Amino acid sequence: MDNILENKEKTHLSELGEFGLINHLTKDVTIKNKTTVLGVGDDAAIIDAGASLQLVSTDLLVEGIHFDLHYSPLKHVGYKAIASNLSDIAAMNAKPEQVLVSIAVSSRFTVEAIDELYSGIRACCDKYGVDLVGGDTTSSVSGLFISITVLGYALKKKIVQRNNAKENDLICVTGDLGAAYMGLLVLEREKRVFLENPEVQPDLEGYSYILERQLKPEPRLDIIKKLDECGVIPTSMIDISDGLASEVLHICKSSKMGCLLYEKKLPIDTQTSETAMEFEILPSIAALNGGEDYELLFTIRQKDYEAIKDMTNISIIGYIKNNPRDCSLVTHDNRSLSLTAQGWDAFLKPEKKKNI
Amino acid sequence: MDNILENKEKTHLSELGEFGLINHLTKDVTIKNKTTVLGVGDDAAIIDAGASLQLVSTDLLVEGIHFDLHYSPLKHVGYKAIASNLSDIAAMNAKPEQVLVSIAVSSRFTVEAIDELYSGIRACCDKYGVDLVGGDTTSSVSGLFISITVLGYALKKKIVQRNNAKENDLICVTGDLGAAYMGLLVLEREKRVFLENPEVQPDLEGYSYILERQLKPEPRLDIIKKLDECGVIPTSMIDISDGLASEVLHICKSSKMGCLLYEKKLPIDTQTSETAMEFEILPSIAALNGGEDYELLFTIRQKDYEAIKDMTNISIIGYIKNNPRDCSLVTHDNRSLSLTAQGWDAFLKPEKKKNI
Repeated sequence: MDNILENKEKTHLSELGEFGLINHLTKDVTIKNKTTVLGVGDDAAIIDAGASLQLVSTDLLVEGIHFDLHYSPLKHVGYKAIASNLSDIAAMNAKPEQVLVSIAVSSRFTVEAIDELYSGIRACCDKYGVDLVGGDTTSSVSGLFISITVLGYALKKKIVQRNNAKENDLICVTGDLGAAYMGLLVLEREKRVFLENPEVQPDLEGYSYILERQLKPEPRLDIIKKLDECGVIPTSMIDISDGLASEVLHICKSSKMGCLLYEKKLPIDTQTSETAMEFEILPSIAALNGGEDYELLFTIRQKDYEAIKDMTNISIIGYIKNNPRDCSLVTHDNRSLSLTAQGWDAFLKPEKKKNI
Repeated sequence: MDNILENKEKTHLSELGEFGLINHLTKDVTIKNKTTVLGVGDDAAIIDAGASLQLVSTDLLVEGIHFDLHYSPLKHVGYKAIASNLSDIAAMNAKPEQVLVSIAVSSRFTVEAIDELYSGIRACCDKYGVDLVGGDTTSSVSGLFISITVLGYALKKKIVQRNNAKENDLICVTGDLGAAYMGLLVLEREKRVFLENPEVQPDLEGYSYILERQLKPEPRLDIIKKLDECGVIPTSMIDISDGLASEVLHICKSSKMGCLLYEKKLPIDTQTSETAMEFEILPSIAALNGGEDYELLFTIRQKDYEAIKDMTNISIIGYIKNNPRDCSLVTHDNRSLSLTAQGWDAFLKPEKKKNI
């Protein structure tokens, strides 16, 4: 399904060496932000935070845990690694401006393979106006490891944490949920078919939306901009990487509040629903527990309802309750279920993951 | 030689889960710097850079490449991971204040093992007054991976890069060189003995200084402070992680200059020399090409000579020349040799590494 690891006419990393590889990977990097004083090439990058506060977040992505090169092209792996980190800065209501990327690669990777990875990294940086300012490259005994650090900026009064949701605040989500997870299930099914019979072409027809959501997620910086334009500062916010249920419980725990969600309000795309039914999974369960949506979950005061009610790509799915022990979901048939987090847990074995 | 990986009465990581492990590792973390507005617990940490510029640097450390748990206790691995990153900030003439630490660990590690690692991380952070403000924990298919990002601060006029060395500037190094490399050779020798005959106790008597230099290096923030106190701003600076020869060539290349070093001026500890002779290696070669000293290499104007000449832990080893193609070493017997970089290269196979 991917052939970037084939060695035909490819350049082995040892031919370039570490410094050669760094030069090779960073020679086309240009600086886009005034806050970037110095990029790659010295012991450290230099950032000027000026009058804003700075946000910094970091992630470590592991082959076989966070991505599978059987079905994720390296370009998409690079794009997604950056996108998921920009999403962390969006979730603070801030603007990402710099990233640092470190990779550890085993000898099975060629320079051309790493170029593919970096083409995705650069594509996402370019799309969102972010500067690549540093990193580290090294070898690994096996597999590919990607560490991303992202720096972002916001005025102090605009930064949104997780801990300030208040009683009766409206709970909102962007876009739709569960698609990335259903995309993953389709890819895993086709991988099993491929491993059993490499002659069979993967059958991905009709799944383009959910596959794109899985392979190439986008950080919701568009929503951050829109909220800013209409003068709404959420009372709490988080990005949905581990599934809606897990994230809403994070907000409730940090804010010492409870919540009520309505199943009928959960935004789910038709392709997600249809694929979920095909896999005999309730679409709402995919939306609640499937991870990697990288949508934003946030709370707003009731007085801000008018400002956002006609905004596309925002759904109001419930409200905050005063009792921290009461986090529940009202189902289609009007039952009340207690919310539990069953999303990603990096320490569960891969085959146990997403066992929703 | 180490038993931290034994599972007797130990807690498996899966018992805690990712969020449990994050809580466990960060529950004792206190904030030491005014620039740290918000530490762990949200999507991103918040840093206030105020009137200074900010420096940011990142490293990815891989078991089997950068450290070997056969002879490096996890506590030392953690300490060294932080120390080597603080050294990058010192090399910009700046003060490190925050770190983010991400780890990927395989299932053979217990919670107690990761506690050991973090006790070293915290010990180094505490010693140098640095705040641990974030990170990521995940699983790996095999081995331990540690990604460190460090943030530092300096007034704009005090930041020192690699590219400003001028003709006749004096080339200085801190401390002594080659010790960490000789310590590594001793540890590797004892590892081979241990693997051949696990009953034999390691013979590390008489090597305490070079072993400490290998296992527990210290960033030279003391020198940064001293230089500041006597009003000296180096014209260029780099930390010695890949060996003196490699680093001086980095400064020359960035500054478009050449250099002349004197073999007789290279600072080498007696234990380093004696161990080098035991291994039939010229001590100067260990000093030039052995890495991981984490000493500082810097250049100063001749007018600053008086200010630093009596300073302990600083040696003047040569001077900058105008011709970028002329980087050489005058030997004890007065021959002139061309300098070549033969230090660490992360993409050479481990057994080829350090083949000096």
